[in-house]
Amino acid sequence: MFAGAQVSLYPMSDDFVDVILSSLSALDPWRDRLRIETDDISTLIVGPPEVLFPALRDLYAAAAGTGHHVVLRATLSRGCPGEPDDPICQTGALANPAEPLAERQAAARSAIADAPETGQQAAAQFSLYVMGAGDHMAEIMGCIDFLKSSGTFDRSKNFCTRLTGDAGPVFATLQQGFCRFGPPEGHVTIDLTVSANSPSTR
Amino acid sequence: MFAGAQVSLYPMSDDFVDVILSSLSALDPWRDRLRIETDDISTLIVGPPEVLFPALRDLYAAAAGTGHHVVLRATLSRGCPGEPDDPICQTGALANPAEPLAERQAAARSAIADAPETGQQAAAQFSLYVMGAGDHMAEIMGCIDFLKSSGTFDRSKNFCTRLTGDAGPVFATLQQGFCRFGPPEGHVTIDLTVSANSPSTR
Repeated sequence: MFAGAQVSLYPMSDDFVDVILSSLSALDPWRDRLRIETDDISTLIVGPPEVLFPALRDLYAAAAGTGHHVVLRATLSRGCPGEPDDPICQTGALANPAEPLAERQAAARSAIADAPETGQQAAAQFSLYVMGAGDHMAEIMGCIDFLKSSGTFDRSKNFCTRLTGDAGPVFATLQQGFCRFGPPEGHVTIDLTVSANSPSTR
Repeated sequence: MFAGAQVSLYPMSDDFVDVILSSLSALDPWRDRLRIETDDISTLIVGPPEVLFPALRDLYAAAAGTGHHVVLRATLSRGCPGEPDDPICQTGALANPAEPLAERQAAARSAIADAPETGQQAAAQFSLYVMGAGDHMAEIMGCIDFLKSSGTFDRSKNFCTRLTGDAGPVFATLQQGFCRFGPPEGHVTIDLTVSANSPSTR
C-alpha cells in the first residue's frame, strides 16, 4: 500500500516564506514516521493515515496560529495502483469492507468525539473520490451521511462538502472519511482545502 | 450533464484582496456562458469545458501578470451523478468513447498546437480521476501517455503530473485531459494547482 499527500501552505502575506518555514516545525514530532520531499509547488508527505492526518492538523494549526489568512491545500491518496508498496505506509486504520455502512459510520463518529481540540478554527472543504470496481457512489453517499452527523458538517456545495469547527475534530472527520469508506485495497483520494482567518468571514 | 469547478486564487501578498478583485475582470468575456457564485473558501464556476478552461486560463494569466507569487487552485468535475442536469453545461467537447485511445491522443495534441500563448508562464500540477464503471486506470494511463507527448509535460510526481510552459498550452493540455479521457457520460474530476512567480524557482 502507498498512502500520502501533496501538501501546500498559502499564507496571504508578504511574509509568506517566514510563515511557511516557521509552521513546518509542527511536523517534527511526526517526522520519524513520515517521508517528506519538497519542491516549488508542493511537499510530498508519505505515511499511514493515522500519522498523516494528525501531522496535517498540527501543520495547519501552527500556520493558523500566526494570525494570517492562510490556506492549507492537500491532494491525499491511498491505494493508487500506479504507486509501489511502501513499508512506511503500513496501517491498521482502514475499515473492514465487510462491515455494514451503519457500523462504520458509528465508529467514525466515536473517533471524532475523542479528538483533542487545537484552539484553532478551521473552515474546510473537500471531495472524496472512490475509484475502481464496486459502487463508488454508495460509498460516497455513505460517507456523506456520516459527515452530516459528524458535528463538523457545515453544508454541501457543488463538487464538495464544507466542514467547520476546531481543527482537531475537523481533521479527525477527514481522517475517518478517508479510512472508513471505499475498500481497504481500493484507490481513494481526497481533494482538500482548509482556510484560516479569512477576512470574508469576519 | 453538470460541469464546473470550485476555484480559488491565493496571492502570497498583503494586498491579496486587491490582487483577487482586479484579476476577476478577466472572467468578464466569459460570464454570459458561465454561472458564478462566491463564498469565503472558493468560487463556483458552472459551464461547459470549452468555456471553463479558457476562462480559468485568463483568470490565471491576469493574476500572474500582477507579478506576485500567486496560486490558482481548482476542483473540476463533469458528470457527477449527484449533480442535476444544467442546460448551461451543454457541450460538444467530450470525446467519443468508441474512438481508440491513439486517435483521442492525436486529436488532443493537435488542439494544443492551436492554443494561443498568453505571455504568462504556468507551473501546474494536477490529478485526473475517472470514476464508476470501466477500467479507470486504462483511461488514466492513456491520458498520461498523451501528457508525455503534449509539449507541456514536466514530470510525474506521486499522486499527480506536473506541466510547465506558457499558460495557453498548459490550460489547453488540461482541457484535453479532462475532455478526451473517461466516457462522456462518466464522472471525471481534476484536482488542479497552478503556480506563478514562485521565488523557489527563481
